[in-house]
Amino acid sequence: MKLYYSPASPFVRKVLVCAHECGVANDIELVPTKVVPSEPNREYGRVTPLMKLPAFERDDGLVLFDSIVICEYVDSLSKGARLFPATGDARWHALRLHALSDGILDAAVLTRYENHVRPAELRWKAWSEGQLLKVDQALDFLEANVRDLEGLTIGTISVGCALGYLDFRYPDRPWRQGRPKLAAWYESFAKRPSFEKTVPKA
Amino acid sequence: MKLYYSPASPFVRKVLVCAHECGVANDIELVPTKVVPSEPNREYGRVTPLMKLPAFERDDGLVLFDSIVICEYVDSLSKGARLFPATGDARWHALRLHALSDGILDAAVLTRYENHVRPAELRWKAWSEGQLLKVDQALDFLEANVRDLEGLTIGTISVGCALGYLDFRYPDRPWRQGRPKLAAWYESFAKRPSFEKTVPKA
Repeated sequence: MKLYYSPASPFVRKVLVCAHECGVANDIELVPTKVVPSEPNREYGRVTPLMKLPAFERDDGLVLFDSIVICEYVDSLSKGARLFPATGDARWHALRLHALSDGILDAAVLTRYENHVRPAELRWKAWSEGQLLKVDQALDFLEANVRDLEGLTIGTISVGCALGYLDFRYPDRPWRQGRPKLAAWYESFAKRPSFEKTVPKA
Repeated sequence: MKLYYSPASPFVRKVLVCAHECGVANDIELVPTKVVPSEPNREYGRVTPLMKLPAFERDDGLVLFDSIVICEYVDSLSKGARLFPATGDARWHALRLHALSDGILDAAVLTRYENHVRPAELRWKAWSEGQLLKVDQALDFLEANVRDLEGLTIGTISVGCALGYLDFRYPDRPWRQGRPKLAAWYESFAKRPSFEKTVPKA
């Protein structure tokens, strides 16, 4: 099995954390891959048409994407923890947390493209501000609903990866400020070996 | 149950098609809601912190998002068809098709923001071109893998909604050209009453 991979991608990290927790990380070959939306990687486009990271190739050649589908597939191979609650409110809570975290990441990544990739004279402040408002409101939601961050699920893993990405790419925006419960949760959660082994690198 | 709704949103349409196919459309109240990323709808931010459409409110007050989570919840209430294959390769194929379709939509919606919402002097051609290349490659993938478009699943529904969105917002980009198998599949699939009842409106 192969994972198309970048050490900076928070979506890749989600899959790797799942793989570590499920005891299958050593069965996955990492294929370093570079993607930038304004400079399409056409070779990677032959693996996955949207050219987004991550993609996952099974030994029979079937390519899976996007990250949540790969996480669920990895979970189906688990030799350890099961990360996707099968039914009922536990499932809706976990999937909602995942969607919230991916929303934080989408907004944070779009803002990064706006402010670091787009030529300086073409930047639009109302756009970045709108995206960062989404991030801030989502963080406030997590602070207000910190009781939802229970246990190890695809939901809590995703929240951890989103907060780790903010630390990595937005050190100038101190998300812990005014959010003591979320900060305390993360401090404890990020000590998991699966998180420590997958800290993002530029 | 309430669905926060816009008649132009392809992500909302996905949920509505599922609701019709599952026989629960009449149980859902539609709440018209406007979102534009550069003009945040803060009132809607109290419903769902990312301020994206759709959001879904259960009668007990739990708010679900994003669209795929709502689709799966609607499927769990089904009085008719079941749209999420439970396990195995049928599931991975359906979820991969969903991810592909959402990727088409994300790229098409970002390009629409770029070319219709962003001030004209701040537009970046390399960005739009990179996004539209994703759309085109994903359409080529569907043409080459049209045998995956079998049956009624969250995957095929999502492909239908993505193609319907291209017809709605990109009439100047004729996606059927050079993709006769995909065009034939869509012509037949889009005749489903669930699709005819949910044609997008500006």
